[in-house]
Amino acid sequence: LERNDLAGIQRWIADYPPHVIADEITRAEQVAAIMLFRLLDKDRALEVFEELDPTEQQKILSGQRDHAFHELVEAMDPDDRARLLGEAPAKFARRVLAGLSQQEREMTAALLGYPQGSVGRHMSPKAVPVRATGTVTQALRRIRLKGSDAETVYTLPVVDEERRLIGTATLRSLVLADPDQPVADLVDRQALSVPATADAEEAARLMQEANLLGLPVVDSEDRLVGILTIDDAIELIETADTEDVARLAGASPLTGHYLTASVFQVARSRAVWLLLLLVAATLSVNVMQLFEDTLAKVTALALFIPLLVGAGGNAGAQAATSAVRAIAVGEVRARDVLRVAWRELRVGLNLGLMLSVVAFSIGAILVGWSIAAVLGISLVAICAWAAVVGAVMPLVAKRLRIDPAVISAPLVTTLVDATGLIIYFLVAQAVLQF
Amino acid sequence: LERNDLAGIQRWIADYPPHVIADEITRAEQVAAIMLFRLLDKDRALEVFEELDPTEQQKILSGQRDHAFHELVEAMDPDDRARLLGEAPAKFARRVLAGLSQQEREMTAALLGYPQGSVGRHMSPKAVPVRATGTVTQALRRIRLKGSDAETVYTLPVVDEERRLIGTATLRSLVLADPDQPVADLVDRQALSVPATADAEEAARLMQEANLLGLPVVDSEDRLVGILTIDDAIELIETADTEDVARLAGASPLTGHYLTASVFQVARSRAVWLLLLLVAATLSVNVMQLFEDTLAKVTALALFIPLLVGAGGNAGAQAATSAVRAIAVGEVRARDVLRVAWRELRVGLNLGLMLSVVAFSIGAILVGWSIAAVLGISLVAICAWAAVVGAVMPLVAKRLRIDPAVISAPLVTTLVDATGLIIYFLVAQAVLQF
Repeated sequence: LERNDLAGIQRWIADYPPHVIADEITRAEQVAAIMLFRLLDKDRALEVFEELDPTEQQKILSGQRDHAFHELVEAMDPDDRARLLGEAPAKFARRVLAGLSQQEREMTAALLGYPQGSVGRHMSPKAVPVRATGTVTQALRRIRLKGSDAETVYTLPVVDEERRLIGTATLRSLVLADPDQPVADLVDRQALSVPATADAEEAARLMQEANLLGLPVVDSEDRLVGILTIDDAIELIETADTEDVARLAGASPLTGHYLTASVFQVARSRAVWLLLLLVAATLSVNVMQLFEDTLAKVTALALFIPLLVGAGGNAGAQAATSAVRAIAVGEVRARDVLRVAWRELRVGLNLGLMLSVVAFSIGAILVGWSIAAVLGISLVAICAWAAVVGAVMPLVAKRLRIDPAVISAPLVTTLVDATGLIIYFLVAQAVLQF
Repeated sequence: LERNDLAGIQRWIADYPPHVIADEITRAEQVAAIMLFRLLDKDRALEVFEELDPTEQQKILSGQRDHAFHELVEAMDPDDRARLLGEAPAKFARRVLAGLSQQEREMTAALLGYPQGSVGRHMSPKAVPVRATGTVTQALRRIRLKGSDAETVYTLPVVDEERRLIGTATLRSLVLADPDQPVADLVDRQALSVPATADAEEAARLMQEANLLGLPVVDSEDRLVGILTIDDAIELIETADTEDVARLAGASPLTGHYLTASVFQVARSRAVWLLLLLVAATLSVNVMQLFEDTLAKVTALALFIPLLVGAGGNAGAQAATSAVRAIAVGEVRARDVLRVAWRELRVGLNLGLMLSVVAFSIGAILVGWSIAAVLGISLVAICAWAAVVGAVMPLVAKRLRIDPAVISAPLVTTLVDATGLIIYFLVAQAVLQF
């Protein structure tokens, strides 16, 4: 692209699968991205467009003339369109809706009626329901008729006359069955389903745990309104994981691509927490002031402060991170808090003893026995304390219905720093006998 | 279970889907888990067993008599069995292999022949290949014949006479097509495939990006040897994410469940890094010793050390974490290192300026202007430095073919601590004019 090698680009476009081209478009600056996109022929353009993130889709659409704009928007799946509109400015959203056919507009509006983050926003309304009363042949004929437009035909919701969900049948079971068999024989009546207002991430994790390719979505009267497909579920899980990772490091999740988000956006996503943590760290300044006399008498104590708060912080961060992850993947629930605290106390004591041996040796070599003893003793207490606090805080957050990932490693570190210093100075006063 | 309410348990078992029962078995102690498992009827036991992790499967199998043991093992998918054997002790593995039918034993042995972490270990060898030369009806007949045993029939590898992969067809396209149409018309000849020796995590991410339900796996001569299915891919991605999260917090990934792993296992998974970081933190002790005179003259400088190393560490951890994640999901590649460094330098300066205003105010209130100025100036420099180091290190690791997640937040924090202290004391010497 940089070398203006048009023929080379066209060869490259023909050779590579859509998701690779989408990736390159995402990484390019806006003008280059639009140029690259215009080089695609119509079918390929659609395939590539579907692979893009909403932010990128908006970037590309803004550079299209009305005709191409409407063609792209009309061809989108309703759930992808709802996602695009959910993030777009009002003016852009109006332009999108104005160009749609009535049927597509209605479907999109229905999805946008569900709250952000709900299953309704992410499901496909184009499920292919089959009747339990027919035979396999009849069901397959219906799939042939309605299936070309649907997002999935592998999980088929089975409904009664009032569109109420009875269960699901898989296309696999239909294909493998005797053509004259009634569909009723193949229905899994214990099949899971979720209401459209349920949390999208939880529904996605449910699909993963139960190994489902499609999860029927129902309204409050158990009537089928759509289906959540596995590709949307995977994306939901990945987005949630990326958010958790960002939060764990004490940053707000960045919407958009790491390389193309503006420097200001990135700084903003990190600033809030950094500032909060800085203010929280004032606590450690206060603690230090409290013990300023001790410090003035034995300056050597100061030497080990970065090491000590570092070790405590690390131990707390490890515990917090594993607790947050264990909650996210469903291994731990809020009511396990005592079991977790007891485990982490023992883990922390183990770790503290190990660290304390090493730290004692380092201290003894560098500054002598007495301060080394202070260091060793404090480390055991600090590690145990840090591990318990780090693991318990996310569980408490969960119980208070706060996202556990908000209990970031830096937050735990900052809190453990201040208490760790208190432990350190108290041990110092006791051992060095002031 | 605790109340010995057998009838209650049996009602519960009948009502809940297999993955929920599997979850409860995982959370229970070994004896209770085996008892619970024995209460399941045969079909249900198999379903639940498939949902368990290899560690849990081994726990359950150890409690079974020979007959039940062999039935469970024989019914497993070959890839699940290979995963179980890959982690199990030799004696247990021999017992498993001894009880298998010859066909299943051969398939398992073939999978175990591929290196750990390769696609070969995770694929299903029971793919259902179809011929491009036949019609849709012939292909569907073949699927009916061979499909009941296969892990998936939704992505069908299309092969020539020598079992060489030509492309894929989806069951959906077959079902929607005219029965007399030749399969050749429906084949996607650009379909992706991977060699059995390829990295399993990368293959899984490829499936996710390209929205595939099945990815054909081939040998070095492009002959079909199996298929990677989406449920195995999701599990690979989740495991990799969990490992990344653990590494980011400076812990080795824990194999097994958070609640049932022994305290010793958990401590071991965290100890290595904690000890390394403790030794690395000795660097900060050396730096402090270097500036001990400065510190003795102005003890007030010591007050802000925890705050300062905290802020620098947090800024570095944020940058490192977002870089590691961006690499993991494929947004950033090793060759983007300069672009990333330049971005993070600007982000870091922005953040540093913001923090510095706040820190200056705190410092001015608590101890006076001159030390507040030292604090403010150092924070700008430290944040910029921390952001660049934090983001560049994972990229360098990636280029050196080290797992970028090894560049954990604590590692960055520890390194930034020592350099941050040097910056702090140098600024102090310049401003306070020693």
